[in-house]
Amino acid sequence: MRRTVVVTDPPRADDAVATALGELGTATVHEAMGRGGYLGPQFRPAWTGAQTGGTAVTVECWPGDNLMIHVAVEQCRPGDVLVVATTSPSSDGLFGELFATSLMQRGVRGVVLGTGIRDVADLRRLEFPAWSTAVSAQGTVKATAGAVNVPIVLGGQVINPGDVVVGDDDGVAVVPRAHAADTLAKAEARVANEEAARQAFKGGELGLDRYGMRERLADFGIEYVSYEDYHKGE
Amino acid sequence: MRRTVVVTDPPRADDAVATALGELGTATVHEAMGRGGYLGPQFRPAWTGAQTGGTAVTVECWPGDNLMIHVAVEQCRPGDVLVVATTSPSSDGLFGELFATSLMQRGVRGVVLGTGIRDVADLRRLEFPAWSTAVSAQGTVKATAGAVNVPIVLGGQVINPGDVVVGDDDGVAVVPRAHAADTLAKAEARVANEEAARQAFKGGELGLDRYGMRERLADFGIEYVSYEDYHKGE
Amino acid sequence: MRRTVVVTDPPRADDAVATALGELGTATVHEAMGRGGYLGPQFRPAWTGAQTGGTAVTVECWPGDNLMIHVAVEQCRPGDVLVVATTSPSSDGLFGELFATSLMQRGVRGVVLGTGIRDVADLRRLEFPAWSTAVSAQGTVKATAGAVNVPIVLGGQVINPGDVVVGDDDGVAVVPRAHAADTLAKAEARVANEEAARQAFKGGELGLDRYGMRERLADFGIEYVSYEDYHKGE
Amino acid sequence: MRRTVVVTDPPRADDAVATALGELGTATVHEAMGRGGYLGPQFRPAWTGAQTGGTAVTVECWPGDNLMIHVAVEQCRPGDVLVVATTSPSSDGLFGELFATSLMQRGVRGVVLGTGIRDVADLRRLEFPAWSTAVSAQGTVKATAGAVNVPIVLGGQVINPGDVVVGDDDGVAVVPRAHAADTLAKAEARVANEEAARQAFKGGELGLDRYGMRERLADFGIEYVSYEDYHKGE
Amino acid sequence: MRRTVVVTDPPRADDAVATALGELGTATVHEAMGRGGYLGPQFRPAWTGAQTGGTAVTVECWPGDNLMIHVAVEQCRPGDVLVVATTSPSSDGLFGELFATSLMQRGVRGVVLGTGIRDVADLRRLEFPAWSTAVSAQGTVKATAGAVNVPIVLGGQVINPGDVVVGDDDGVAVVPRAHAADTLAKAEARVANEEAARQAFKGGELGLDRYGMRERLADFGIEYVSYEDYHKGE
Amino acid sequence: MRRTVVVTDPPRADDAVATALGELGTATVHEAMGRGGYLGPQFRPAWTGAQTGGTAVTVECWPGDNLMIHVAVEQCRPGDVLVVATTSPSSDGLFGELFATSLMQRGVRGVVLGTGIRDVADLRRLEFPAWSTAVSAQGTVKATAGAVNVPIVLGGQVINPGDVVVGDDDGVAVVPRAHAADTLAKAEARVANEEAARQAFKGGELGLDRYGMRERLADFGIEYVSYEDYHKGE
Repeated sequence: MRRTVVVTDPPRADDAVATALGELGTATVHEAMGRGGYLGPQFRPAWTGAQTGGTAVTVECWPGDNLMIHVAVEQCRPGDVLVVATTSPSSDGLFGELFATSLMQRGVRGVVLGTGIRDVADLRRLEFPAWSTAVSAQGTVKATAGAVNVPIVLGGQVINPGDVVVGDDDGVAVVPRAHAADTLAKAEARVANEEAARQAFKGGELGLDRYGMRERLADFGIEYVSYEDYHKGE
Repeated sequence: MRRTVVVTDPPRADDAVATALGELGTATVHEAMGRGGYLGPQFRPAWTGAQTGGTAVTVECWPGDNLMIHVAVEQCRPGDVLVVATTSPSSDGLFGELFATSLMQRGVRGVVLGTGIRDVADLRRLEFPAWSTAVSAQGTVKATAGAVNVPIVLGGQVINPGDVVVGDDDGVAVVPRAHAADTLAKAEARVANEEAARQAFKGGELGLDRYGMRERLADFGIEYVSYEDYHKGE
Repeated sequence: MRRTVVVTDPPRADDAVATALGELGTATVHEAMGRGGYLGPQFRPAWTGAQTGGTAVTVECWPGDNLMIHVAVEQCRPGDVLVVATTSPSSDGLFGELFATSLMQRGVRGVVLGTGIRDVADLRRLEFPAWSTAVSAQGTVKATAGAVNVPIVLGGQVINPGDVVVGDDDGVAVVPRAHAADTLAKAEARVANEEAARQAFKGGELGLDRYGMRERLADFGIEYVSYEDYHKGE
Repeated sequence: MRRTVVVTDPPRADDAVATALGELGTATVHEAMGRGGYLGPQFRPAWTGAQTGGTAVTVECWPGDNLMIHVAVEQCRPGDVLVVATTSPSSDGLFGELFATSLMQRGVRGVVLGTGIRDVADLRRLEFPAWSTAVSAQGTVKATAGAVNVPIVLGGQVINPGDVVVGDDDGVAVVPRAHAADTLAKAEARVANEEAARQAFKGGELGLDRYGMRERLADFGIEYVSYEDYHKGE
Repeated sequence: MRRTVVVTDPPRADDAVATALGELGTATVHEAMGRGGYLGPQFRPAWTGAQTGGTAVTVECWPGDNLMIHVAVEQCRPGDVLVVATTSPSSDGLFGELFATSLMQRGVRGVVLGTGIRDVADLRRLEFPAWSTAVSAQGTVKATAGAVNVPIVLGGQVINPGDVVVGDDDGVAVVPRAHAADTLAKAEARVANEEAARQAFKGGELGLDRYGMRERLADFGIEYVSYEDYHKGE
Repeated sequence: MRRTVVVTDPPRADDAVATALGELGTATVHEAMGRGGYLGPQFRPAWTGAQTGGTAVTVECWPGDNLMIHVAVEQCRPGDVLVVATTSPSSDGLFGELFATSLMQRGVRGVVLGTGIRDVADLRRLEFPAWSTAVSAQGTVKATAGAVNVPIVLGGQVINPGDVVVGDDDGVAVVPRAHAADTLAKAEARVANEEAARQAFKGGELGLDRYGMRERLADFGIEYVSYEDYHKGE
C-alpha cells in the first residue's frame, strides 16, 4: 500500500563496484545479469556521450509534481544516482539545471527519470549525466506527497535504494545491490571474451565458426540455395 | 470556417522583445507565462543547439502538401519565424534546405513544423534553427490550398501571426503578442531569482530550505523512517 | 510461404552507381524515384552524420533473435549494406559493435535494422553507418531460423538482395537494382536543378515565381486579404 | 497568460441547433465546416453507439487532478456537454460514474476528455455519452487550480464555452457558436446530396461518373493498362 | 518507379478458396502459411465480429486523398476485397458509408485500409466488413493521382491484385494467389488437429504432454523448485 | 539474476477475498490501495464486459515465445488468473483459444498478458476473461526458457504469485497477497460511501459541497468572473 514516506540511510552497493559497472556500460552489464535489468529503449540520454554508474536514491512522484525530488536531494550522498518514477504516465519536465547544480554539489553522479527533463543544453554544458523518457520544458507543481527510497518500478525493472544504476548511450540498467559484485565479475569476464572475439573478427574469422553455429545450421532447417535456383520457375 | 486566404501585414510583437525572449529560452519563457505556451515534447530541434526567438508567420497546409509554404515565404520579413501546421496528422517532409536558403535570404530566424522536416544535415551546416515533430525525407505535392497568417493550433497552443515564438533544445513556446513585453519582464526576474538560487545551491543550501518547503512536509503527511524500521517485520 | 533459406550470390547493382547514390543522399534519391523508396521517419541514424550507399544483403530474423545476422555476415561482400527485418515488431538490440567489426573487415558499408541496435557509442567511434527503429541494449537469443537474401519488407518498402540502399540523417531509401542507373541520372539532374534554384533563392527570387505557382493561386481559390479586413467585425 | 478563473454564464449556441447537429453526426458536421473542427482519431467513445450534440462547458485541469471538474459541474446547464483539457499530456482517469450521475441530474448530454476516463462499464449502462483519449482507472488528486469556461484547445481545435460539441462513433467535432446555424444548414444540404448519391450508387452509378471525375483522369496523368501489358518484360 | 496507372483485369485467386480461407480466419491462415502474411496488430475491425475472405483489388493513394478509391470501385468485381495503402503515414478517413454502398452493389466483400475510416456506425449497421489503422472523420481531397491494381505494401506484407485477403477480429492476413489452394489445404489440416487438441484439453490433457514438450524441459535448462526453497535465505 | 525456473505451490491469497475484489472492480480496488496497483491504460479487455478476480500464476516469456505458458498451465489451480510478462516489448499473440480451453478445464478465471492475444472472437464466445496490450494473430515459437511463479513486472506493478489480480473494462489491478483482506475492507467501505454520494448527486447535491471543496476555492486562488467582465477590453 502506498505510503508518503522518506526512508533514510539505506544500505548501498559498494562504490568501487558501482563505478566499475558504470565504466563497462549498459549492454555489458545487462548481459552479465543473464540479460536482465535493462530499462528499455524509452530511456534516452539527455546528451550524447553521457555515461555513469552509481547507487540509487529512489523517488516516487505524482505526475507533473516534483515536490519529492526536493525532498530527495537531502538524502543523496556522493556516488549516488537519483532515480525518479511517477505514479502514472507523464512527460512533464520534473528536473532541470538547478537540481543538477544542487546534486553536483553533493557528489551525485546522474539522474534517471521515467518522465520529462528540461534545460538539456545546460545539462550538456555541465556534463551532468541524465536519462529520461522525454525532453519537456513543461513546468510542475509541488502539491502532492510521494516517497523517497522505497522500491520503485521503472521500465519494467524494480529498483531498490542502494542498487547500482548504470547508464550510457544505449540506455540504463539496474543491478540489485546483492548481485553487484557478482555481476561485475561476470561483466569483466564478458569483456575479456569480447576482446578476443574482436581481434578474431578483425582477422577475418566469422562468428558462425567462432561460436560453433555452423554445424547447427542444418538442425535449424536452414538450407543454402543459389540465387538462380531460388528464383527458378517464377 | 476554413478559408483559403493569405492575410497580409499582420502586426508583430516588438523585435527586441522577441530576440530577448529567444535568448532566455523555452523553459524560462514558459514559466514566466504561468506555465503556458509550451508546444510539448513532440517538437524536437533538427540539430542540437538550435536556439531562436522571432515573430510568427503562420501557415496551414494540407498533409503532404507544401504549396502554402511557398506562398508564405513572400509574407516573411526579417525577424520572423515560420510556423507550419497541417490540417490533419502527418509526418511528411514539408520543409528542407532550399526553403531555408530562401528564408535566410529574407532574414527569417527559424521554422517550426507540426509535421516532418528533411535535409537536416544541411540545416545543421547552415545553422538554420528548425523544430519539427518528425524528420522525414518524404516528398510532397502542391495540390491543395490552405492559409497564411491565420490563427493556427500547434501542440495544443493557439499561435497568431505576430506572436513571439521561442525555441531551443527543450522545444518551442509561443507568447501572445499582447503579453510579450510583460512576459519578458517576468522572465528576466525569474532568471535573476534562479541565479541567486544557483549560487546558493553551489554553496550547499537545499531547495527544501530555500523554498520554505521543509516546514510544510508534515502537512503533506510525509514521515521520515529509518531503513531498518521501514523493512522491519518483512 | 516462409522458408528458412540462405540465397547465395544474388546479382548486385553496380557499385559505382550505389556509391554515387549514397553521396546524393536519401531525399534526393527518393525524389528521383518519383517520391518512392523511402523507409519512413521511424528509421533513425545511430549517430549524427552517418551517410552511406551500397548494395543490400537482406536478412529476416525472428524478433529478439540474431541467429540469421551471424549467418548473413558470411554472405556480405565489399560494398554491401546489411538490411535486417524481423517477422514481427520488436525493439531488441539485434546488432552491436562486434558485428560492426566483423562487417567492416569484410568491406561492408553500413547496416539498416527494422528493430533495435546497441553499442551506439562504439559505432559512432568506429564511424560505422547504422540506422534502426530503436536503440536498445536488450540482448538476444540464437534459437530460431530465418532467411538471408530473400525479399524483405522494411518501412513499407520491398527490398531485394542487390538493391541499392542509401542512408543519411534524413533516414533510408531503397532503389531497385533495375532502376539504379536511371535513378542516378534523374537524381543528378535534380541536383543540378536544385543548385540553380539555390543560387536564385540566395539572390532573392521566390519559389512562387521560379516554379510558376503565382499565376495558379487564383485557381486554387487563394485570396489575399489585409489583416484589418480579415479581422473586421470580430 | 494562464488564470485560475471560473467564467460564469457564457452565451451558448442555440439548443435546437446543437441537438440537430448532434443527430447529423461528426463526419457530416466536419465536412459542412469546410473540413474543420474535428478533434482527431485519438478521441474514442467510451462505449459503442454513443452519440450527442450540445453546448460546451470548458474545463482546464492539471494532469492527474480533477478539482476543476468538481467546480465545473455547478456551471453546467441542461443541454451542455462538458469538455475537459489538461495542461500537459496525461492518461489518468479524471472522470467516472459519479460525475456522470451528477451531470445527468443537471441535464448534461455528455463529456469529452483529452485525458483518461474510468467506470466505462457503468457509463455504458447509464448510456451517458463520453469520449476520451484513454480509458484508465488511475485515480486523481484535487490539489491544483485550473479554469472553467475559458477557451481551451483539444485535438488541435480551439473550443470556447457555448460552442457546439458533436460526438459519435467517428469521434468529436466542435462548431464555433457563431457558425452553428450556418453549419447546420450546410450539413442538412450535404445529407440531402448524400441521400441522392446513395440511391444512385445502389442503382449502380459510379462516383467516377456522378462526381464528374472520369473526364479529368487524363489530366491527372492516370493511364489504363492491361495486366498483361503492365507485367510484360518482367 | 512509381506510376499513375490503373491495371485492368488482373487474374484472381479462386473464389471458393478465398471464401473458405475467410471462414477459417486470420490466425489459422497465418499459421498455415508458416506464420506469414499477417498485417499486424495495427489493423483493427471497424466493428466487432466482422469477418471476410476475398480477392484483392489494390489501391495506392496519397495521404488524405481518396481520388484513387473512386477510380478503383469500377475495377471491383463480386468476391473482391478493396485494399488501400497510402504513400506515407496518415490517419485521415479515406473511406465511408457511401463507398461501402457502392461496393456492396458490386458484390465486394470488404475493405482494408492502412489509413483512417469513417461512418463506422453505418458500416456496422450495413454489416460491411472493414479494417483500418484508424477511425477518423477527417475528410479528404481528390487532387493527386495514385495507382490501382499494382503491388502495394501494407503492414509489412506485399499484396498483389488477385491475392486472397482474410479478415476477422484478430486482424488481416494476405495469401499470395499462387499459394491460396495450398494454404487452404494446410489450414484445414490445422483446424482438424486443433479440434483434436481441443477435445483432449477439455478432457484434462496438458499441452506439455500432447506436444511432447515435457521431456525437453531439462534441455531448456528449466528446473522445478518449491516456493520455500526458491525464497530460502532471503 | 534471471533463472529458468518453475516455482511450485506458492501460497495464494484467500479465494473468497479474491472473488469479492473482482466483483468490486478495478477502479475501486485501485483507490482502496491508496491509488496503487493499477497496470495502466495499455491493458485492454479482449471483449467488452469481461470481469474477474483471482490469484496470480505468473509467467515470464521471451518475446514471441509461449513455451512457458505451456509449462505454466500445469501450475494453475481453480481460482487462479494467469499473468504473463515478456522480457522485452512485443505484441505477438502468445495466447489463444486452445490455451483458454485448457485453463477453463482447470478452473482458471482469466488471463492478463503484457503482449498480444489472438482468437478474440472465440474468447468472447467462451466468455473467458482476458486482458492484453495488443490483439495480434502473430504466431509464436517454443524455443527459449523463461520462468513460472517468480515475481514479474507488468504495467509498472510488481506481481508475485498468489497476489490478487482484478480486471474489468477499466483494465487490471494487482493487490499484494498480504494486503488483500485489508484492501477488500477498504474497498467495501468506499463502495458504501460512493452509494451515499450517488444518491446525493441524484438529488442534486454538488460534489463541491459534499466534499467540502467550496470553502477552499479561494485558497486555491480561484476567482469567479462573469463572461462579460472576462472578455472586457478584448
